[in-house]
Amino acid sequence: MTALTPALEDFLDAHVVGVVATAPQGARPRQSVVYYVREGDRLLISSVADRAKVRDVEASGWASLCVMAPVRPFPSATFSGRAEVLRQGIGPATAAVAQRVMQAAEPPEPQSDEALAAVGRVIIAITIERVSAVSHLEQ
Amino acid sequence: MTALTPALEDFLDAHVVGVVATAPQGARPRQSVVYYVREGDRLLISSVADRAKVRDVEASGWASLCVMAPVRPFPSATFSGRAEVLRQGIGPATAAVAQRVMQAAEPPEPQSDEALAAVGRVIIAITIERVSAVSHLEQ
Repeated sequence: MTALTPALEDFLDAHVVGVVATAPQGARPRQSVVYYVREGDRLLISSVADRAKVRDVEASGWASLCVMAPVRPFPSATFSGRAEVLRQGIGPATAAVAQRVMQAAEPPEPQSDEALAAVGRVIIAITIERVSAVSHLEQ
Repeated sequence: MTALTPALEDFLDAHVVGVVATAPQGARPRQSVVYYVREGDRLLISSVADRAKVRDVEASGWASLCVMAPVRPFPSATFSGRAEVLRQGIGPATAAVAQRVMQAAEPPEPQSDEALAAVGRVIIAITIERVSAVSHLEQ
């Protein structure tokens, strides 16, 4: 276990996807691949409100994201901590994630919370409280 | 949720690493990157006995592995089911995982269970009972 360092921040910023794990109440952990963007010590993930992972985060207040470089020896680390589902002021974060999905030079124009709510979009925000399983990475 | 299909078997065989999640008793899920090899409907992971994930599997009898192709659009799926820690007859599986780690044309000569026990090596075997979060993949 370690803390978030500039080297780990650079690693997060150099990659765009990770495997998020959530902890359903009374059930097994759930994993899926998501795009993310880092904002300070938070990882922001764009999702839609009816996804199981969104429900899990709302119920448990926790999530973890494992990020891996796609080349050998597959440097990787797992970032975890308290998590929440945001619906207010999420236009810029949603646009920042969309930019990474689309590989655009600039983020798209942020949408209003109302427009995003109409299509069910939310942001899962993980505050990095713990870094674990650090492998083949400077810390 | 879906079943293991030939297309998903091919996907598993075409990749060498994934993110394993385990469920510690009374604690948050744990994630780390591991090499694996598929044997029928089982995923075999080489590990060492004092790792937290090994203890988790012994206590919970469950694990999941999320595998992602390293190129856009990042095809991925999560394979989960009952899991156990093997210590008997693990020479060939340990050699098969080592071959994938080393990118060798042939697996190394399998070691005896006694030799592997002396260095603490075990195999985590996940029986694929559930395939979920299938994304950008034929099923």
